[in-house]
This record gives sequence, structure tokens and C-alpha cells, in this order.
Amino acid sequence: MVESIGKDAWLRGEGQDADIVISTRVRLARNVEGFALKAKLAGDEEVALVQHLKQRIGKVKLAEKQQFVDLKPLDDVERLLLVERHLISLDHANADSERGVIHDDQGSIALMLNEEDHLRLQVLGSGMCAEEVFDRAFAIEDDLQGVVEFAYHSRYGYLTSCPTNVGTGMRLSVMMHLPGLAFTKQIDKVFNAVARMNLAVRGFYGEGTKALSDLYQISNQVTLGKTPEELLNDVRSVIPVILRWEREVRNQVLKADRVGLEDKVWRALGALRSARTMSSSEAFEQLSHVRLGVHCELIPDLTIATLNELFLLCQPGHLQTVVCGGKAIEPRKRDIVRAELLRSRLGGR
Amino acid sequence: MVESIGKDAWLRGEGQDADIVISTRVRLARNVEGFALKAKLAGDEEVALVQHLKQRIGKVKLAEKQQFVDLKPLDDVERLLLVERHLISLDHANADSERGVIHDDQGSIALMLNEEDHLRLQVLGSGMCAEEVFDRAFAIEDDLQGVVEFAYHSRYGYLTSCPTNVGTGMRLSVMMHLPGLAFTKQIDKVFNAVARMNLAVRGFYGEGTKALSDLYQISNQVTLGKTPEELLNDVRSVIPVILRWEREVRNQVLKADRVGLEDKVWRALGALRSARTMSSSEAFEQLSHVRLGVHCELIPDLTIATLNELFLLCQPGHLQTVVCGGKAIEPRKRDIVRAELLRSRLGGR
Repeated sequence: MVESIGKDAWLRGEGQDADIVISTRVRLARNVEGFALKAKLAGDEEVALVQHLKQRIGKVKLAEKQQFVDLKPLDDVERLLLVERHLISLDHANADSERGVIHDDQGSIALMLNEEDHLRLQVLGSGMCAEEVFDRAFAIEDDLQGVVEFAYHSRYGYLTSCPTNVGTGMRLSVMMHLPGLAFTKQIDKVFNAVARMNLAVRGFYGEGTKALSDLYQISNQVTLGKTPEELLNDVRSVIPVILRWEREVRNQVLKADRVGLEDKVWRALGALRSARTMSSSEAFEQLSHVRLGVHCELIPDLTIATLNELFLLCQPGHLQTVVCGGKAIEPRKRDIVRAELLRSRLGGR
Repeated sequence: MVESIGKDAWLRGEGQDADIVISTRVRLARNVEGFALKAKLAGDEEVALVQHLKQRIGKVKLAEKQQFVDLKPLDDVERLLLVERHLISLDHANADSERGVIHDDQGSIALMLNEEDHLRLQVLGSGMCAEEVFDRAFAIEDDLQGVVEFAYHSRYGYLTSCPTNVGTGMRLSVMMHLPGLAFTKQIDKVFNAVARMNLAVRGFYGEGTKALSDLYQISNQVTLGKTPEELLNDVRSVIPVILRWEREVRNQVLKADRVGLEDKVWRALGALRSARTMSSSEAFEQLSHVRLGVHCELIPDLTIATLNELFLLCQPGHLQTVVCGGKAIEPRKRDIVRAELLRSRLGGR
């Protein structure tokens, strides 16, 4: 697992509008005909469900390389690692039922088995790539339809555990880095615009989690009563507006107080290069400032890919895996290890 | 004037206990027989007084090199420069009467003419050197007695403008850097101990000025009713106590939370190496932390002399002289220039 760390394709900082859009993700919630929905599924039926899906999906070529990971025998750090790579959800990690994930070696495709729904299919890409991940997800779903029969109602569409997902079962999310709007306290504009479109803003790890250091996840709220294409277009129509606001605000700040912005981003880099202990929340905040600095061309010799990777590596699961070989360490020591990692990766002293 | 900047002997960080004692200073207040005290001195008499002293003292060899500086024609920046070198007082700089200073090229000896008293003789040295500056000051005073007659009362001693200086007219001051005691909020111990000895704690530029970033000036309060030697011993007896407290506290902090202290001092250095704009008060605070780090051997490759020099150069007068050739610049621009200077001197990026 360790060799793939920090190598996932969505970290590359490539693709359209990658200065602001970190990644785009689509997920489809599906349930299997013939099995009860999660809430009514007995323990042995869960085992049968996971076996069924593992076997059937094993016949479908999802990517060059793909693997099934049984989540049950993994320890906390290993599960956390998958959460941080966005390959499984926090709930999926923390459950204790029979469950697993099938994913490719690029971290682009993940199929959670026996999560809230029997199957959660996800495609993840770097930068703004809504159409691409959308097409890829539905192409995979098409292939899966050949081996698995999904629970479908002619009037409501795909049936899911939670009524909010009934219909298309689709959620399209765009992870945006909006330090300019956050810095100038105009982020409410985004919340308002998004709400008007019946879209939602969510935190870094998905629903119910806090916004981490200027990272906002824009996604569709509704899945019922619209076609997948309509939902795709809803999301696609609001992103350029937010992109324009964020760029305008960056330019305004650069014009009005270039030195102030330079000071902010360089001090952040200075802290990352100097600190001897740093919490994850501070690291994210400082990395967010530096990321803004790189994109405003105030800081040379640093790439977005490096910063994206550090965002990932600073998280507890990756930190304990990369630096401490997967051994769980206490938070105080973790902060020291995090500071060491940041100094070594950012040319600190 | 510019070539001597940052070269004054007291900046060298040499001498006894130089990790904590920045400098030691003695000053003698004297008035000249035959001239009215300051408050009653008319404008033409001031001119005569300064002429008289300049001429008479000119006959005494104070050091290898010495010069008279007429303060009247100097501009604000030039006067500020002398204040920051501790060669004249703030009051002396800001007055508009006839006045001057005679000083050596090492910044060790300064004789202010027509300050609050007709003559204020000062000797300044690096580190803890109370006896040395004391002996040197009285040796110079002895020489001056050969050419100038000082106002002396057989019962009260030397007469001065302010009654608090009557008697010996002496003030012995020790400038101490006490970040450990300040950091652990034990600085009150120093204030109490000093008060019990009838000594005073003053700010960086002398009486009535604020304490700058953990720098405290310990000096005698009383000048009457004791001999100069007794006053010297009073000050000398309290300093070792404060030194011990400061060292104990540093060791305690190092033992209890070495990483926390390392973090603090390295982040301070990081800020100095990274900031694009920095106020003088922040610069002093950060330099104070770094100075502590150098002395606790947490930061290699930096000398106390460099830090002492930067303390000086960050002050407005020096900054405008060193970087801007003596041209007055507005505070906002000064903060930018200060940050540039700090980055370039401390290997910042």
C-alpha cells in the first residue's frame, strides 16, 4: 500500500482550472436486486453480498490494475489511509460489518462494497473534469449492469438506503480551493449561489465534515426528478461563476495590497519550513496560503502537485504510514513528525 | 556617520554573561560652576556653555579618536541614529536648544553637552562590565576636573537639575535580555527584587520608555547618601541573582518542553527569514526569541553579535540611514525595507 502513497492521479494538480479545482468526483449509489437494503441486512447476508459483488465485479475490467481490499482485517491506520485517499468513506472505515473496496492503482476508481448502499461506485479526477468522470462512471456502471442486477423502480429510479439518494443515486462533487474568497470574507456569496441552484457545499471528507482550510466541496443536493445529465449541467453551470469570483478576488487583493499577500504566503511557507511541531489543522491552513502564493506566482520553485501531496501526507493516516511505517503514534509525537516531514519536503531548516 | 553603523563596541556580544547582559552603562551628571542650571539658562548662555565645554573637553584625550557633533544642524534621522546608538538621549535629540555630543569612534564614550545637565558623561560596554565602565567613567571625570570646574556642594555632593540626581550624579544601568523569565511570566520576581534593593527597572531607551521585547534595564534609583562604590555594589549584587533565575528558567523550559522552545525560536527565525513586511516591535520580539534560541544552542550558525546588530539596524533611524541613505521614509515602506534587511542578513528567501 505504501508504494502508492501520494501517487494518486487526482493529486497531480493537472487538468482544467487546477489552480482552484483540486479534484472532481462522481459517485453512484446502487443496491443489488435480491438483497435487503443495508438496514435490514443480517450479518451472514452481508458476507454473501460482499462475496457476490466481489466475484461479479471481478469479471469486469475496471482499469489496467485493480484490487479488492477486505476492510475487516485492516488496522485503524490502514483504514484511515484509504479514507484520506478518498477511496472509502469515514463511515465505511469505522463500520464493523463485512465490507470491502475495489480500487484501481491510480486512485481514480473505487467501488465500496456494503457501505450505506450495497455498492458505491466512485470516479475521481484531477482539476475540473466533471464530464470525464461522469462519462467514465456511467461507462463502468454499464459494464457492471452486465454482471449485477441493480434494484430499480420504474417510477423512482435506482433505490437507495437513504431517500435523498433515490433516483439517479448520483452525486457529483467538485473540490475547490477558495482562499481568496475566504480571506476576503466573501465565501457566503458561494454558499448563496450554490443554495439557489439546489446544490450543497460540504467539507473535505464529505457530508457532515468541517471545511478544511479554504477547501470547499460543491455538489448536487437532489438526485431525484432530474436526469444525470441535468445534474451534471447544474454543477457545471455554477463552477465557472465561483472560479471567476475567486480569480477576481485574487486579482483585486494583488492590486490593492500585493505586499500584504506576499507577506501572508511567504510567512506561511516560513512557518512550514521552520516549525518543530505542527497540528494538522495548522498545516492545512499554512499549505492553503502557500498554494495561493504559488498560483498567484508569488512563490517560485514549488509545484501544486507537491502541495497537494503534502495536504495528503499531513493527514494522520498517511503520516503514520509514510514516516512511521504504519505504526500508530500519539498526537503530540505526530505533530513533531508532521513538522519534520514538512521541513524536509519544503527545503526547511 | 554611516561607516560606523553597527560597529559600536557594546554590540559585540562579548564580555561576561553576554548571553543575558547586552550592555552595561554608567553615566555621570555634572554641571559647570559659573553657569546657571538648565532651567535658568538663557539662549546665549547655552551657546556659551556648549562652546566652553567643547573647547575645554577638546583638550582631554578621551580615546584614540573622538569627535564633537553639533546636534542643531542635524536632521531627524541623523539625531535618531545617535539615540539608537545610545550616544544621546531622546530628550537631547528632540530639544531645540544649542547642544552637542562628544563621542569616541567605538560608541563607548559619549558626553552630552547641555542635556538636562550641562554635561552627561557616559561609558558603555558589552556584556556585564560594571566595574570596568565605572572605573573608566571616573577616570575620564578625573581628567575633566583638570579643565572644567563642576558645581559641587560639600554636603549634597554634585548639584544637578533634577533633585533625584543630586549627590553622585551617577546612574549605573545593566541592559538584560530576560526572555525566559518573561516567557514563563516570572518577570515580576525581578521587579520585586530590584525594588527591594532601591533599584529601578527601565525600558530600552531609558526612563519613561516601554520595555522592548524582553529587554530590561536595571539601574540604581538613588544617587544621594551613598558613595559611587556603594551604588556600584548595589547593582552588582542583584545582577547575579537575576542571571541565575533566567538561566534556571531556561533550563527548566528546555527540560520540560524542549520541542516547544525549539518550535518557538525556529518559527521566529522563519518569520524573520520570510516576512515581506515587519513592524519594528514585531522584529524585536522575533529577534528576542531567536537570541534565546542561539543561547540555548537550539540554533547554530548565528552569532549574538549579528542579532545585536539587527536589533540596532531595525530601529527607524538606522534603517533609514543604512538602507535609504538617510532619507526619511514613511512607516509602511519602512516595514517593507526592514523585512528585506532581515531576510538578507539572516539568509532568508
